[in-house]
Amino acid sequence: MMLFANTGLRTTCDRFLCGHTPLTQRDQLKQLALSPLLDMPIDRYGQGPAIQLLEQETAEILGKEAAVFVHKGVVAQQMALRTWAERTRRYTVALHPKSHIDADERNAYERLHPLIGLRVGSEHSMFTLQELKALHEPPGSITIELPLRNAGFTLLPWDELYAISTWAREQHIPLHFDGARLWECGPYYGRSYAEIASLADSVYVSFYKGLGGLAGCVLAGPKDFIEETQAWQTRLGGNIFTVFPYVLSAYEGLQHHLPKMASYVARAREIAAALSRIEGVQLVPDPPHINSFQLYLPAPAKALQKGIEHLAETEHIWLFGTLHETQFPSLTMVEVVVGEATEQWTTSEVVEALQKLLQLARDA
Amino acid sequence: MMLFANTGLRTTCDRFLCGHTPLTQRDQLKQLALSPLLDMPIDRYGQGPAIQLLEQETAEILGKEAAVFVHKGVVAQQMALRTWAERTRRYTVALHPKSHIDADERNAYERLHPLIGLRVGSEHSMFTLQELKALHEPPGSITIELPLRNAGFTLLPWDELYAISTWAREQHIPLHFDGARLWECGPYYGRSYAEIASLADSVYVSFYKGLGGLAGCVLAGPKDFIEETQAWQTRLGGNIFTVFPYVLSAYEGLQHHLPKMASYVARAREIAAALSRIEGVQLVPDPPHINSFQLYLPAPAKALQKGIEHLAETEHIWLFGTLHETQFPSLTMVEVVVGEATEQWTTSEVVEALQKLLQLARDA
Repeated sequence: MMLFANTGLRTTCDRFLCGHTPLTQRDQLKQLALSPLLDMPIDRYGQGPAIQLLEQETAEILGKEAAVFVHKGVVAQQMALRTWAERTRRYTVALHPKSHIDADERNAYERLHPLIGLRVGSEHSMFTLQELKALHEPPGSITIELPLRNAGFTLLPWDELYAISTWAREQHIPLHFDGARLWECGPYYGRSYAEIASLADSVYVSFYKGLGGLAGCVLAGPKDFIEETQAWQTRLGGNIFTVFPYVLSAYEGLQHHLPKMASYVARAREIAAALSRIEGVQLVPDPPHINSFQLYLPAPAKALQKGIEHLAETEHIWLFGTLHETQFPSLTMVEVVVGEATEQWTTSEVVEALQKLLQLARDA
Repeated sequence: MMLFANTGLRTTCDRFLCGHTPLTQRDQLKQLALSPLLDMPIDRYGQGPAIQLLEQETAEILGKEAAVFVHKGVVAQQMALRTWAERTRRYTVALHPKSHIDADERNAYERLHPLIGLRVGSEHSMFTLQELKALHEPPGSITIELPLRNAGFTLLPWDELYAISTWAREQHIPLHFDGARLWECGPYYGRSYAEIASLADSVYVSFYKGLGGLAGCVLAGPKDFIEETQAWQTRLGGNIFTVFPYVLSAYEGLQHHLPKMASYVARAREIAAALSRIEGVQLVPDPPHINSFQLYLPAPAKALQKGIEHLAETEHIWLFGTLHETQFPSLTMVEVVVGEATEQWTTSEVVEALQKLLQLARDA
């Protein structure tokens, strides 16, 4: 079970531990009004100079021929998986059982398409080439979530990723990257985004999350493939009258947050090291692979929720989003996502806040 | 075939005959910043006070228990039709072959769902109860587009609509209204939106088109039904991180354009009557049912396109959007949509502009 944070109290806070500082509607509009793309004509049903610039720039960063803006990753990935299936005429998709596509989209890929998931990999880590081969059936496509969020934002080592990519090409099996957090992966691999994306045939990258945009993403890949996905984009309601606020904010995210990603990742490792020294606290993975990690706290979720709300009321700080209950009643998982908001904290302030929270939970 | 207008030239114009005057990105943001909902917290994945207010207000206008904001009508209607099909366990949908769902969405309802279209009605008019009965099979649901855009924005007479609704209820067949232009229908029926919508079990209404919003719509109906559609909304990528610019602009549309709808319709009839007197020009329907109608011009599409561009260059006026070729090479159809932009024209200016255009096309 998951407990959700009190959004009413949250909006009264002035410091946030996770992600980027949330902007109000008013401040979002002010920021959009500063966009260098502001005086370009408005897009209409996916056509326009600003959306085209965003698509081209993202395609270039990823080293892909073409990219198309999509309002939601759920749609971008269905566009990719369905198009690959129509090309290979094989409707099986090898994916991890904890991947977003299989775990968090109400099985859209199976309920809206004739796609069939082939689950590969154990619960707490990404699948390996060996596990893929052990399927003993060639899937229509393979999808890899980089990083696998539900396993602690973990990444496959480069060599393993490279081996899967090489094997998939030999077998003529298209490889798709779910790159909802691909921007966050650069520092771990120490390679350019183009080099990382070159291992896959298609890749989806998000503009909110790490890049702090309003929403939206692109799907990138070969030009003819991207063109083929458009029919599915239309069917899936992705051909929107205008998406200009998303486009402006995505462009801002590329300019502002992308160059800071390495510092977010470094900071996450620093904070993680300090938190791991608190009695009873565990981290997954330790050290973190990207700017985010799972934090296991020795307290029940309900007690932690009360503590988080108390700190919001008394100190106007907001620590975590969702509280995930685990198999142990007195152990709760939260995700720590280091972004711009975390710059407002010294590491010892983070440690202190967590110790206070644990004390509040013990006293509850 | 359709010819599309030169968008580059279009943006240099200062008067537009069709629809509302297009706003630039800059002006759109300025307008959003004036919203009375601006200081409400931002929505997150469909939750928040502004989106809730919009949903409640729209549900009230339509006299329905509940409404949910959706970014795109294509998705809202799939949510409705799939949910009705799951409830009735019958996957056939009675619809008009020229309806948006069947003609303009790349058959999404059939390609993404196990739905099967039962086409009813002749080419140039909405279907009647008699034609529905003549199917001799009970469909899982019935959908009626109000008005049927591709047949000249035409409406069924109230008595016929009422008869279909009554029969559908007797047969326990859910009736869905595609109300992309439902706001435009009030004056024709001379009834409240709630009374019109009461004939259907579910109804989709759009916030752009007549209401001039950025995009988006709501699906309205019984509370338990709307709740059931949410799973499909998630699968269809309708659960977006934030949609606040759409929400603010939709609310503005309800306050600003909805009260003016009757005057747009009256103006359309006035302009239509004047245009119908021009030699060789024909209107469908005549008189118009709503604020929009089809105008058949005695000239080839390419000649008209050149003429439209010439008037844009020399007089900075923009007349029509898409030029539709017909079965006669020298007859072209354009849609006239009367909105706020049309208020900048006297009726004799409209007539004069059309006469100039026809002369330019003759000289081409």
